[in-house]
Amino acid sequence: MLGRLYEKQDCSAARTLELVGERWSLLILRDAMFRNSTRFVQFQRSLGLATNILAKRLEGFVAVGLMEHRQLEPGEQPEYLLTRKGMELKPVIIALTEWGDKWLEPGPIVYTSGLDGRRVKLQLRRVGDNAPVALSDVGVRRR
Amino acid sequence: MLGRLYEKQDCSAARTLELVGERWSLLILRDAMFRNSTRFVQFQRSLGLATNILAKRLEGFVAVGLMEHRQLEPGEQPEYLLTRKGMELKPVIIALTEWGDKWLEPGPIVYTSGLDGRRVKLQLRRVGDNAPVALSDVGVRRR
Repeated sequence: MLGRLYEKQDCSAARTLELVGERWSLLILRDAMFRNSTRFVQFQRSLGLATNILAKRLEGFVAVGLMEHRQLEPGEQPEYLLTRKGMELKPVIIALTEWGDKWLEPGPIVYTSGLDGRRVKLQLRRVGDNAPVALSDVGVRRR
Repeated sequence: MLGRLYEKQDCSAARTLELVGERWSLLILRDAMFRNSTRFVQFQRSLGLATNILAKRLEGFVAVGLMEHRQLEPGEQPEYLLTRKGMELKPVIIALTEWGDKWLEPGPIVYTSGLDGRRVKLQLRRVGDNAPVALSDVGVRRR
């Protein structure tokens, strides 16, 4: 975790980045979300990062409630399972992927509905009537 | 920029993070997207980060096409304007914000349609018929 790097920022995006903005953090979560990785060795093989960094990230995710431990047998290495809180970061990963697919190069995977295998995408829509809104039209106001 | 930290990752999310995954990068883009910051001093005041890091990030964004310079008068400090490529990272910021609003604490701003001021949110929808899809139902397949 970044700790309090952004502590002067009264901003939900900054607060989220305090938890997931370190190098490798979002890719570790990607593996948990979409590659069903649960074991240290699975993350390590997929990502090839230093084991001390991986251990720090995974334990950090447990500490802030993005993951929880599951240990089936005493003495076995624990598994790291996403909580609902962690799983709900999916749109961040999907948004990064969609942008890279469009502006860099098409990547190897597409997102699909597990129910019927059809492709899914993020859309910006108006609250209430769900009318689509163009990215160029999105602004902010005080809550 | 992270350079080639994730070069072994054949993944669009990783490729995007190579460009925007460094500390402060996404908050600089947030300021450009939603606070209309264009000048070095505006970013610096809003973020309070070291000027050498800010300069490196802004010039990095120009180098990869997320921003472009605009210099109205010779000798004046150039402005940094988001390109369309940069502007289309909005969903990443919005996804981070929505998650923080829900799971950490409600932040100070909400996203709105500039056309009518009504609130907007990201939604996952099926391509084609735009049917909503639950986050828990989203998976991946090879392209």
